[in-house]
Amino acid sequence: MSQPLRLGIAGLGTVGVGVVKILRNKVDLLRQRTGRKLLITAVSARDAYKDRSVTLKDYAWESDPVALAQRDDIDIFVELMGGHDGPALNATKAALAAGKDVVTANKAMLAHFGHELATIAEEKAALIRFEAAVAGGIPVIKSLTEGLAGNQISRVMGVMNGTCNYILTQMQATGRGYDALFKECAQLGYLEADPMLDVGGIDAGHKLSLLSAIAFGARVDFESVALEGIQHIALEDIEQADDMGYRIKLLGVAQMTSAGLEQRMSPCLVPKESPIGQLEGGTNMVVIEGDEVGRIVLGGPGAGEGPTASAVMSDIIEIARGIRISTFGQPANTLVESGPSPSVTPAPYYIRLRLQDQPGALAKVATVLGQEGVSIDRMRQYGHSEETAPVLIVTHTTDRNALDIALQNMHKTDVLDGTPITIRIENM
Amino acid sequence: MSQPLRLGIAGLGTVGVGVVKILRNKVDLLRQRTGRKLLITAVSARDAYKDRSVTLKDYAWESDPVALAQRDDIDIFVELMGGHDGPALNATKAALAAGKDVVTANKAMLAHFGHELATIAEEKAALIRFEAAVAGGIPVIKSLTEGLAGNQISRVMGVMNGTCNYILTQMQATGRGYDALFKECAQLGYLEADPMLDVGGIDAGHKLSLLSAIAFGARVDFESVALEGIQHIALEDIEQADDMGYRIKLLGVAQMTSAGLEQRMSPCLVPKESPIGQLEGGTNMVVIEGDEVGRIVLGGPGAGEGPTASAVMSDIIEIARGIRISTFGQPANTLVESGPSPSVTPAPYYIRLRLQDQPGALAKVATVLGQEGVSIDRMRQYGHSEETAPVLIVTHTTDRNALDIALQNMHKTDVLDGTPITIRIENM
Repeated sequence: MSQPLRLGIAGLGTVGVGVVKILRNKVDLLRQRTGRKLLITAVSARDAYKDRSVTLKDYAWESDPVALAQRDDIDIFVELMGGHDGPALNATKAALAAGKDVVTANKAMLAHFGHELATIAEEKAALIRFEAAVAGGIPVIKSLTEGLAGNQISRVMGVMNGTCNYILTQMQATGRGYDALFKECAQLGYLEADPMLDVGGIDAGHKLSLLSAIAFGARVDFESVALEGIQHIALEDIEQADDMGYRIKLLGVAQMTSAGLEQRMSPCLVPKESPIGQLEGGTNMVVIEGDEVGRIVLGGPGAGEGPTASAVMSDIIEIARGIRISTFGQPANTLVESGPSPSVTPAPYYIRLRLQDQPGALAKVATVLGQEGVSIDRMRQYGHSEETAPVLIVTHTTDRNALDIALQNMHKTDVLDGTPITIRIENM
Repeated sequence: MSQPLRLGIAGLGTVGVGVVKILRNKVDLLRQRTGRKLLITAVSARDAYKDRSVTLKDYAWESDPVALAQRDDIDIFVELMGGHDGPALNATKAALAAGKDVVTANKAMLAHFGHELATIAEEKAALIRFEAAVAGGIPVIKSLTEGLAGNQISRVMGVMNGTCNYILTQMQATGRGYDALFKECAQLGYLEADPMLDVGGIDAGHKLSLLSAIAFGARVDFESVALEGIQHIALEDIEQADDMGYRIKLLGVAQMTSAGLEQRMSPCLVPKESPIGQLEGGTNMVVIEGDEVGRIVLGGPGAGEGPTASAVMSDIIEIARGIRISTFGQPANTLVESGPSPSVTPAPYYIRLRLQDQPGALAKVATVLGQEGVSIDRMRQYGHSEETAPVLIVTHTTDRNALDIALQNMHKTDVLDGTPITIRIENM
C-alpha cells in the first residue's frame, strides 16, 4: 500500500482545477488518510495556454485525453471533461480497456452509457467511481452503496438541479417571473451551454437514473425517466401553491412499484414544511427510504468547485485505500433491466387552465374529469377582466393516465383557452 | 472473496435481534452486494431462554461473550451488549487479541477506550467499525471517514440524543413541563437504565467525542467534552426562546479553534428556521462543515431496531467487501492528543434569573456583568406576584469565562434568588 497512486486528470475547468489544488495543498492530510502518496502524473485540457491559477508545469501535458488515459504511468483516469459522448466517452473507454480505474463527474455519460461502461470495467477488473456526478458534495452515492447497503431501498427522492431550485425559490421570494429569472441565470453563468439540460430537467434526470441503478439493482436507464421541465411554471402557480401550503420543486422520485421501477423528474407541489419544501437556492437534497433505516435526508451544496472537487477526491481516496466496490454496488451482470416507467403512482394533481367565458364551461370541464373518474377536491374560478376565466382545480388522488385522457377530452369541448398546466402534488 | 464471512454476535437485545433478522431475511441481497455469503456462526446473550421472535437454533450458543469472541470459526465479533466496560470491553479486547475484526454499536466503550482499542486493533491488523454508535441509521461515520475525506473539517454539530430532543420538542409543542415529560419517557422506555446518560448529555457527549476523533484526527477524549444536560430547562425558557425566534436543542459542537479542539454538548438556542431548529422528536441530525464542501446536513432516525441494525449491517458489509479503513480514519499513532476543551468560542448567552424585589437589584446585576465586559443586548423584568422578580437577559457575544466570573460575582451581591440559568445562543 505504500506505492504512490498516480493520477491523470482530463479536463481543467472549475472542478479539474479544484481537484489539482486539493492534491497540491493537502499532501500530508491525504497521505495520513490513505497511507500513500497521491501524485498527478499528467493532465489534459483543450487549451494548454489558459491561465488556471494553479501550477501545471510539474505534470506531463497530453493534448489528447485518449493518450492520457492510456499512459503507462497513471493508475486512475480522472475524467472531468463532461459531454455525454465524444472525447469523454472515448477516453473513458480507453482507460478501462487499459485496465485503469476511472473517477468521473460525468452524469450525462453514465446516464447514457453507464451499463456498458460498468460491464467493460468489470471485464478488466477496473472500477468506475462517480460520487461527483450526483448532488455535488453530498456523499449520496456512497451513502446508498455503503452506508445503507443493508437495506432494501423503497424510494429515492431528490432536488438535484440547483439552477431550477434557484429559479423556483426566487420566483417565490421575489415575485419575479420565470423568464426574468431564466435570463438572470444565463447572465450569472448558472445555466449549462444547452439550458434545456437544466430547466428541461435532463441534468436532474441523469442524476436520478444513476441513483435508481444503485438503489434498485437496475441497469441505468435514463430513457425510462419520465421527464418534465420547469418552463411552464408561472408565478401564478407558485402563488396558488403557497396559498395551499405548498412549494413547487423540480423533484425526482424513483420507487419500486408492483408494476416495476417508476422514475420521474418533474415539478411537484411539496408541503412547505417538509425538508424538501424548505430547500432554498442552489442547495440539493436527497431523501432515501429503506426498509430498515426508515427515512434518511442528505442535504448540501449541489455544485461548485469545492463541493464537486470534494466528491471527486472522495473517490480517489477510496481507490487509494484499496476499496473496490462494483460500479453500481453489485456486479453488472446482476443488474436487472427495468424498462419504461410504468403508470406512475396515483397522486392528487394541481390543474390550472383558462376557460372561454360562456355559460356551462365550468360544468363541461367538471364532466370530462368525472367521466374518467377524476374527482375534484377543490375548484376555483377567479375574477377576471379578460375574455377567458382562469380556473384552478385540485383533484383527489388520481391515476395519471385517467387524468391525461380527461385533459384530452377537455380539449375537445372547445371551452378551453390554451393548454392546461398540471402539476403533481407529492405529499411525501 | 468467495469464502463466507462468519459472524459471532454478542448481545441479543433489540438491535442484536434486528441484525439476526436481516442476516436471515436478506441472504441474496447481501450476497449480491458483497460477493460472498454472510453467516452467523455463534451468538451470546445473558438469557438463553428468552423468546426473541427469531430462530437461534442454527447458531452455536456461548454464555460467555469472551469465549464467543475467541472462537476459531468467527471472522467478525459483533458487539451489541453495551456498557462502557465489563463484559463488552473484555470481549472486544479478546476479539482484537485474536485478530478478529469488531463491529460495535457501543459509543460508551469507544468514548472511554476508543484510542486504546484502536491501537490494539492496529497491532493485530484488525478493524473496529462503529457506524451504529453515532446517530443510529444515519451514515455519519462513513460520510466523515470516506465521503468527505478530501476535506479539512472545520466544525461538526449535531443533535444526537433522541430522548432529549423528544422532551424538548414536546415541551414546546404541548406546554408540558420537563418533569412530566421525563416521567413519560421513563414509561415509554425511552430512557437508558441510568437516565443521566440521556438527560445529562452523556450519551450524546460520547457520540460527539467519536465524531471529533474522526473529523479532527484526534484521540477520542470524552473527558474533554464540556457537558451540560437539559434538566434545568424550564417551560419558561422554551417560551422565551420561541418568542425570540429560537428553539432549545441539546446541541453538540466540535470545532478546531486557534486554542485547540473545542468540544461541547449543551442545551443551546438555535434559530427556529434552521434545519436543526426544526428537528422534531427522536430524529437526529448532524451538520458537517468542510473547507471544500461547505456545509453538509445529514438527518434521520437516531435509534431503534431497524435504523441501528441498518448501521451495524453497513459495517459488516464493508468488512465483507474487503474494505479496511483505520478505526478513526487514519493510523492510531497519527492521532493527536487534544486535551481539555479550551475556553469556548464566544457567543451570545440567554440568562434567566430571579431577583430579590428590592431597589437597585437590577442595577447591581447589570453592573457585575459590565465589570466583566459582558454587554447586555436586552433585559426584561416580568410582572410578578411573588417576592422575587423573574428577569431575562440576552447578552451580546461574550466570552464564557467572563460570563462565569460575572455570575459568581452576581451571587456575592445577595440580590439573587437561586442560581441563574444560562443557555448559549448558537446562531450557526
